[in-house]
Amino acid sequence: LAAVREAMNRAKHPALLLVDTISSLASIDYRHDEWEVDVTVCGSQKGLMLPPGLGFNAVSEKALAASQSARIAKSYWDWQAMLQHNKGGFFPYTPATNLLYGLREALEMLREEGFQNVFARHQRHGEATRRAVRAWGLEILCLDPREYSGSVTAVLVPAGYSADELRKAILEQFNMPLGAGLGKLQGKVFRIGHLGDFNDLMLAGTLSGVEMGLEVAGVPHSKGGVAAALSHLTEAAKQSRAQVDQTVSVSGR
Amino acid sequence: LAAVREAMNRAKHPALLLVDTISSLASIDYRHDEWEVDVTVCGSQKGLMLPPGLGFNAVSEKALAASQSARIAKSYWDWQAMLQHNKGGFFPYTPATNLLYGLREALEMLREEGFQNVFARHQRHGEATRRAVRAWGLEILCLDPREYSGSVTAVLVPAGYSADELRKAILEQFNMPLGAGLGKLQGKVFRIGHLGDFNDLMLAGTLSGVEMGLEVAGVPHSKGGVAAALSHLTEAAKQSRAQVDQTVSVSGR
Amino acid sequence: LAAVREAMNRAKHPALLLVDTISSLASIDYRHDEWEVDVTVCGSQKGLMLPPGLGFNAVSEKALAASQSARIAKSYWDWQAMLQHNKGGFFPYTPATNLLYGLREALEMLREEGFQNVFARHQRHGEATRRAVRAWGLEILCLDPREYSGSVTAVLVPAGYSADELRKAILEQFNMPLGAGLGKLQGKVFRIGHLGDFNDLMLAGTLSGVEMGLEVAGVPHSKGGVAAALSHLTEAAKQSRAQVDQTVSVSGR
Amino acid sequence: LAAVREAMNRAKHPALLLVDTISSLASIDYRHDEWEVDVTVCGSQKGLMLPPGLGFNAVSEKALAASQSARIAKSYWDWQAMLQHNKGGFFPYTPATNLLYGLREALEMLREEGFQNVFARHQRHGEATRRAVRAWGLEILCLDPREYSGSVTAVLVPAGYSADELRKAILEQFNMPLGAGLGKLQGKVFRIGHLGDFNDLMLAGTLSGVEMGLEVAGVPHSKGGVAAALSHLTEAAKQSRAQVDQTVSVSGR
Repeated sequence: LAAVREAMNRAKHPALLLVDTISSLASIDYRHDEWEVDVTVCGSQKGLMLPPGLGFNAVSEKALAASQSARIAKSYWDWQAMLQHNKGGFFPYTPATNLLYGLREALEMLREEGFQNVFARHQRHGEATRRAVRAWGLEILCLDPREYSGSVTAVLVPAGYSADELRKAILEQFNMPLGAGLGKLQGKVFRIGHLGDFNDLMLAGTLSGVEMGLEVAGVPHSKGGVAAALSHLTEAAKQSRAQVDQTVSVSGR
Repeated sequence: LAAVREAMNRAKHPALLLVDTISSLASIDYRHDEWEVDVTVCGSQKGLMLPPGLGFNAVSEKALAASQSARIAKSYWDWQAMLQHNKGGFFPYTPATNLLYGLREALEMLREEGFQNVFARHQRHGEATRRAVRAWGLEILCLDPREYSGSVTAVLVPAGYSADELRKAILEQFNMPLGAGLGKLQGKVFRIGHLGDFNDLMLAGTLSGVEMGLEVAGVPHSKGGVAAALSHLTEAAKQSRAQVDQTVSVSGR
Repeated sequence: LAAVREAMNRAKHPALLLVDTISSLASIDYRHDEWEVDVTVCGSQKGLMLPPGLGFNAVSEKALAASQSARIAKSYWDWQAMLQHNKGGFFPYTPATNLLYGLREALEMLREEGFQNVFARHQRHGEATRRAVRAWGLEILCLDPREYSGSVTAVLVPAGYSADELRKAILEQFNMPLGAGLGKLQGKVFRIGHLGDFNDLMLAGTLSGVEMGLEVAGVPHSKGGVAAALSHLTEAAKQSRAQVDQTVSVSGR
Repeated sequence: LAAVREAMNRAKHPALLLVDTISSLASIDYRHDEWEVDVTVCGSQKGLMLPPGLGFNAVSEKALAASQSARIAKSYWDWQAMLQHNKGGFFPYTPATNLLYGLREALEMLREEGFQNVFARHQRHGEATRRAVRAWGLEILCLDPREYSGSVTAVLVPAGYSADELRKAILEQFNMPLGAGLGKLQGKVFRIGHLGDFNDLMLAGTLSGVEMGLEVAGVPHSKGGVAAALSHLTEAAKQSRAQVDQTVSVSGR
């Protein structure tokens, strides 16, 4: 995103830079101000670990000005009522007070773990998941490693097999819903979410469900995906413990 | 237990048969009446999937009579106050009403799944866990296969290693508490619970935590425990689906 | 509303009839189909006893056709995506699944009480509240008894007094938030809500908070509002018990 | 209790002083150490605002020594297992972890309000309740004002009337369960609890339920109990606000 903004700036392009962070905020490092994003939107139901119901908007001065002068009809992009009321600590409409309390707790949990640790955890889970997918002999939809996601991994099923039937078998047999392919990817792709309130053992359970599901649904694959993921997670765990010991030993001198 | 009772009957022994079902009721088939047990005790916090707080007693006529004629001081074994008040639907002391509502829901969940399915699930998880333990090259504490438990598996760590240090490493690194060895087994054994509100993927996550923990804590073991467990679970899943298809096919003729 | 529709029909007026039922649905009798309403909107957070987060739309064929041919930009009024996905049991966007479970329970609660009883309860609480207001010597904002609401009562404070300071005193002293006057009524009116999961004793507590608050905040009033409300509620309770006894006696003959 | 201890000390009596604080701890001032109590017992379900499930024991050195030398059979009074395990932060049996988390929050709530404020609130509610009872023309069971309770008020129904039928009518009509008279007081007394997570408006609702219930059940009484209670609560609220204003004014100089 920083590169996108840089290119826009170089070209002196007047367009607003809008970013959808719904599946990434609080899971992957993100800098609204530093990257000069104009509008960032997010929801409560992913990295913020809450039920759906809250939408978040971060809006630059430039976007605000554009919104006020624009003459198109708008509703979600019309921030004035909210901004006016927020000044006094209020909402223009009935607020989801219960979710605001939940948000306070979610932010507290994120701060306790530390954002750098949260981001590292999502990266680790993304990498472990991709290793599992490769061991199964399946293809990751994302081709460019720079665009690998720490929060969700889309996997292609072999030609002639239905990702939706696989998802159905896994849901029925193991009570685990996987994300569907959207639009032209429907039936060709299933998505493994690994974000939010999620840890190494949940990921192991998740990948186990996929590995068993591939077998149960008769989708051709190699075994060993879970083992490959566990290797990566174990390695990370050993390093993290060595680091702690190092710290103890250094500070203990 | 049926055999114990039969032996007691054959010997015309007057002793009461008392059974502690705390870690097994609603997880493993059990017949208080059929096996002529005199006193069965249970708690709410295992197979009944509730917080701790309720104790259950099933008491035979013989045990009741014994309780009334016995002259030892008793408190937990003194059932009269409870029996008197229960007749009218009341408790002699403040009841844990919240847990009684929870119990109603827990029983509903067990009935929905079907007790035979619940028992089969626990047996499957016990077997998968034991296969994992054997693949790790570790020893199961229970030597007699007739006494294998569907709800908990105790595992011996190799001589010279501390089960408690292993448990500590797994708790710190993977946020998973394992049961300790009690009494003379302390430090030599760790216990893997697999009962109650528990499914195949939770078991896979649990065993993954143990396998990674063995590596992290430096306890000698072979890899492949999780893979062995997944094989067993996958086989069971395939059979269960074949059975469903069979049913469909038969009824569809 | 039926009369509004009748007038529109008589005049053969082509306008759509749109009704906001946010503070009334499931509290006051309402007939979308029978009264030929074109669009009814509602939210989850009042009579349906849920947190905010769900919006409901009931849409006539006429409104649907109008929506499809209209060329204005729309977002909340654009129902096509929702209608298409709902056919298959899905949502076009992330659904608030937790609230859908809550809705199922809320509807079950309403059915258990019986809609006629729910409506009668709200009418009773509205009448009791108005009697309290009159006993305090204050004015009800609504002048036409045919427009009295069973779910909320707006009360005018005497000239020279601030409804907002009264509300603040009651919140600080008795931890009870009252509704504010909106728009040109701000500071002149406070609103007593009496809808949803609400019973006679909660109303008594609510009115007690207002009566004590009037005194604490120094707003001129007569005592006896709570007493007047209790008289009405007691009378209703006696009639309801007499009715039950009557039923028993008739069916017992 | 301090006087009881003083009398025991004066008489040099060797008996242990045991105090049941189940309905009073955290509602009424209590000093285990200062009053030299030997054993204090309490439960989680009253002033500590939790579900039932935790029992608390405060035990003097003298009581501990007596427990160890006593040769009677004991179970609830046998504290050794608990004391041994508590040293290391553990429980000898399955702990109600959920309630321990709840206890942490309950204590936090009590500290936030301030114990002196909590005690004053219970005294205020006790006094308001007694004023209501007197206004109804009914008798308070407790005759000695020094023994008035801030957490529960027992009320005698007139001779010839059944307290249990009154309680039944109030439960059916207003969904409010009142405490029964125990032992020889059964049917003659009903108990109004006013402790724990309870405020002025809940008390007003509670007393309204009793006043309406007396009428509905046909128990002879005068009206005006709720009004008398509200007068007392209003007076207290005015004083509390005057005090705050005073503080502001003094510190504002």
